[in-house]
Amino acid sequence: MTEVTAVVEDTHLIETTVSSAVMAQGKMLTVRYDEARLPNGRVSSREYVTHPGAVAIVALTQSGEVVLERQFRYPLKQVFIELPAGKIDAGEPVLTTGQRELLEETGYTAKTWVKLGIQHPCIGYSNEVIHMYLATELSLGAHARDVDEAMDVMVWPFARVMQAIEDGEITDSKTMSAMLMAERYLRKHPVAGLAL
Amino acid sequence: MTEVTAVVEDTHLIETTVSSAVMAQGKMLTVRYDEARLPNGRVSSREYVTHPGAVAIVALTQSGEVVLERQFRYPLKQVFIELPAGKIDAGEPVLTTGQRELLEETGYTAKTWVKLGIQHPCIGYSNEVIHMYLATELSLGAHARDVDEAMDVMVWPFARVMQAIEDGEITDSKTMSAMLMAERYLRKHPVAGLAL
Repeated sequence: MTEVTAVVEDTHLIETTVSSAVMAQGKMLTVRYDEARLPNGRVSSREYVTHPGAVAIVALTQSGEVVLERQFRYPLKQVFIELPAGKIDAGEPVLTTGQRELLEETGYTAKTWVKLGIQHPCIGYSNEVIHMYLATELSLGAHARDVDEAMDVMVWPFARVMQAIEDGEITDSKTMSAMLMAERYLRKHPVAGLAL
Repeated sequence: MTEVTAVVEDTHLIETTVSSAVMAQGKMLTVRYDEARLPNGRVSSREYVTHPGAVAIVALTQSGEVVLERQFRYPLKQVFIELPAGKIDAGEPVLTTGQRELLEETGYTAKTWVKLGIQHPCIGYSNEVIHMYLATELSLGAHARDVDEAMDVMVWPFARVMQAIEDGEITDSKTMSAMLMAERYLRKHPVAGLAL
């Protein structure tokens, strides 16, 4: 399908930057305020969060279960079931982020890492990109969670995670999208004993 | 699976608000800065975008194709293929938002609307929730796009959309997650002539 991308002329869609400034600088979030020239020639404002990017991991235990976390997410004041994930440190290779976050948060290390692709969680007002990996051949050691990082770690059969998505028990978009990518990959690359 | 949610005690995860203030108020984005008491008793800061919520629509044409948009998304400076979606206006019923956005952006109206669930695109730093609908029995009329809203509208076979996700041609998380929900719903509620 790449030929479609190649032949489509996008000048009727593309916006160009007129000016760009930091609108707000918090301890965690940076928000930019840009002026952009629209395809019709008019100028409009664009506000968005800048983000270093993140990695989310579908980690499969030897018995074919998925490593999950339960975490309180303050913006929604709710506990979410989600995949292990974390931000990319400055200059850090993406795979290293995945390996570091999985170990720090859950104590698992994996022998095999397969890139499943990327997703963009919030294209309207953030430049975040989330890299997705499938990690297999796990070993469990000690986690290294920060003293302020409270979470439960648990493992669920793959099919149960998919059912929890269907049932609305899991609503975190990165987890939904990464599980979809993992399911499609595993259909083509079956793992012995794993029921999708 | 609800029994799991019911028996788990979450006090070791829950954070409570100590203070809350607007950190930045743009034309589009509002960013809040809160102080929160963590389960371990310490106080930490939480920064997040507040959002009115949105609706994303998997609209199936009579021939079983999915209505898609191509849009330039400024934060990533890239054209994305995505489902029709839009923000909920103040006081607007969610279904009305879906019907309004589908008509305004694409010109389609639908006789049948089925709620597929919700997704949370950005639980780390936004309180946005996206309501997902499957819309069928479509009729095509005139769109009502804003003069500054540039996009292409196109229809693709359902299976091609899923393949484009697998291939990394579609990376928008809300579209990936909503297509996953639609696929699982349609497996149980088949539409004549629609190949998943």
